[in-house]
Amino acid sequence: MKKSFFRGRVTRLRETLDHANFDTVWITQPENRRYLSGFKAEDGQLTESSGSLLITKSASLLVTDSRYVTQAKSESVDFEVITLKNGLVKGLPELLVRLGTKCLGFEENYLTWELHRELTGRLRKLSHPVRLVTLKGLVEGHREVKDRDEVKAMEAASNLMSDILARVFMKLKPGLTEKQIAWQIEGLAREGGADSLAFPSIVASGPNSALPHAVPTDRKIRRKEPITFDVGVRIDGYCCDMTRTLFIGEPSAKLKTIYKTVRKAQLAALVDIQPGVDSTKPDSTAREIIRQAGFGDYFGHSLGHGVGLATHERPRLGPDKPVKLKEGMVVTVEPGIYIPPLGGVRLEEMVVIIKSGLRVLTGDDHFYDF
Amino acid sequence: MKKSFFRGRVTRLRETLDHANFDTVWITQPENRRYLSGFKAEDGQLTESSGSLLITKSASLLVTDSRYVTQAKSESVDFEVITLKNGLVKGLPELLVRLGTKCLGFEENYLTWELHRELTGRLRKLSHPVRLVTLKGLVEGHREVKDRDEVKAMEAASNLMSDILARVFMKLKPGLTEKQIAWQIEGLAREGGADSLAFPSIVASGPNSALPHAVPTDRKIRRKEPITFDVGVRIDGYCCDMTRTLFIGEPSAKLKTIYKTVRKAQLAALVDIQPGVDSTKPDSTAREIIRQAGFGDYFGHSLGHGVGLATHERPRLGPDKPVKLKEGMVVTVEPGIYIPPLGGVRLEEMVVIIKSGLRVLTGDDHFYDF
Repeated sequence: MKKSFFRGRVTRLRETLDHANFDTVWITQPENRRYLSGFKAEDGQLTESSGSLLITKSASLLVTDSRYVTQAKSESVDFEVITLKNGLVKGLPELLVRLGTKCLGFEENYLTWELHRELTGRLRKLSHPVRLVTLKGLVEGHREVKDRDEVKAMEAASNLMSDILARVFMKLKPGLTEKQIAWQIEGLAREGGADSLAFPSIVASGPNSALPHAVPTDRKIRRKEPITFDVGVRIDGYCCDMTRTLFIGEPSAKLKTIYKTVRKAQLAALVDIQPGVDSTKPDSTAREIIRQAGFGDYFGHSLGHGVGLATHERPRLGPDKPVKLKEGMVVTVEPGIYIPPLGGVRLEEMVVIIKSGLRVLTGDDHFYDF
Repeated sequence: MKKSFFRGRVTRLRETLDHANFDTVWITQPENRRYLSGFKAEDGQLTESSGSLLITKSASLLVTDSRYVTQAKSESVDFEVITLKNGLVKGLPELLVRLGTKCLGFEENYLTWELHRELTGRLRKLSHPVRLVTLKGLVEGHREVKDRDEVKAMEAASNLMSDILARVFMKLKPGLTEKQIAWQIEGLAREGGADSLAFPSIVASGPNSALPHAVPTDRKIRRKEPITFDVGVRIDGYCCDMTRTLFIGEPSAKLKTIYKTVRKAQLAALVDIQPGVDSTKPDSTAREIIRQAGFGDYFGHSLGHGVGLATHERPRLGPDKPVKLKEGMVVTVEPGIYIPPLGGVRLEEMVVIIKSGLRVLTGDDHFYDF
């Protein structure tokens, strides 16, 4: 990602200050932080921040501590790096006085109740008190539509992931454990130059495939059962997310029907996706096909979600909260049917929305024609 | 971990209800959730919970959604598993009515400001309103002192990690990249039966070793420079955390002095650790030694921290907020000196506090006698 991108993003954020009820933006959410500054550090634990940003019309500060200061200076050249010695609660008020902040916009979905309370206590006591107001997903909104370089990174991640799966599938045989296969995937991801996995791989066989969020176990894969791979790698910070369900040997008629139904639902949902459509429409299309096939009780999650610096981000493709789909959004389409203890099938593509509809980034390999 | 442990832990939590200002405990923090219920799921992102616990004098509920229900039922047999269809904000109020909750204790360091606001809005409207009050680290307090099985798991993790490092060190040679070495460590961790790494390995060479939280890069390691390994694996959920700094060939006189100083500070701090001592004492002992050697400006972090289900947990061994050390606590002792761009040295042992002082879990291999 070129340095200039980050500058353009901060400029866009600054423009929103003209008609906002805050004069300073405080960014604590790690993907938003990276999106605006290029600072790649991750947060160790959820309550252990590696830094935050303070942005006004004229100032860009990256506030961190001694552990991250060298990294911050090298990655975020447009930001003034501030090293706090005694934590945010003590350090932030001083910085806000320096910036002349009257009203600080904060990320209500990435600030704990405790830190908010401690800060408001301190900020009220300043001789020029600072008010805290919610940012309401301001930067998440900017992140929804991807630029060309973001799509390129996600395409690279998708291509690498498809190659990895192709290599894993060639060597797939009964007796390998889910964990062994997950480990093969991770090894190939590293060798292939991924930053990391985008999320822990799901390799779920037989009854485990009925768990949408299964964790790989020591279970050995067997013939004729579903084996679900929900996997992704990260390149240049950007994720891909894709799911394939495989069988070694011919599965039962019931599993074939399930597979066929999921695929039909996916294809119909893909047709729905284009700029201007409500985000709920592809979900309801897929859901209706699954319902009509008699599996309505076995598709418990949403159809899909946005992907970018985070594996899950806006927009959500679910049954409620409609938003208009836009050109440049990247979303997954992942219907599934899960029948414990028999097993489950999920198929997931990641697509970018273009003027004429969509482009599938994850290859759309369709293995079976039952 | 035996099932009965979890039951004992819930019983202990219930006993606190007798003299608390809440009648129901709501656990959202993932390690606390696992500690009390055995539910191993992790949270995908901060705002993506895989479930929470509601505990009253007589009821134990694990509240999750369709993605995790099968796993929850198999891992948390003492809990009634509740599957929410429309999210926490809608589902929680109903459950609290059923439980007869008047006052709900919540984890203020693991609830976003936004979710707290949405919930209080709904809870106020109930015909019998529910108040939210802070739990103030109730379960984190219970987790501070480890039982025998917890120490056993951490000892197993430490032994595995020591073995892995020994194997990696034998094959260490100039020209290997930090990333390659980190990848060796991860492979050996998997083969050795770890659940996972406890945290992303730090392998930091030369100038990178001056970054306390360095991320492995493509830099090739060289002779005579510090190479810092801060690594850990997780077994049965429990972490180990240890740091070694190595040199290939004899380093400069200055680096030797730094190493010697860090080791001296560590040994002195270890002597301080025993039941009844203030948690600030070993930190100030180590800090004073480093200061007297002229490196006072180059030790920016705390001496150590508790370890358990989380890599970083209570108690903190820092310069402030003293607590009394207790038998059964597991803490790290990790002084460091970091001088950019020359490099840095950090040495870290993880120890369990016993009646007579401490037992080092991480081997206390001391490589150099400069």
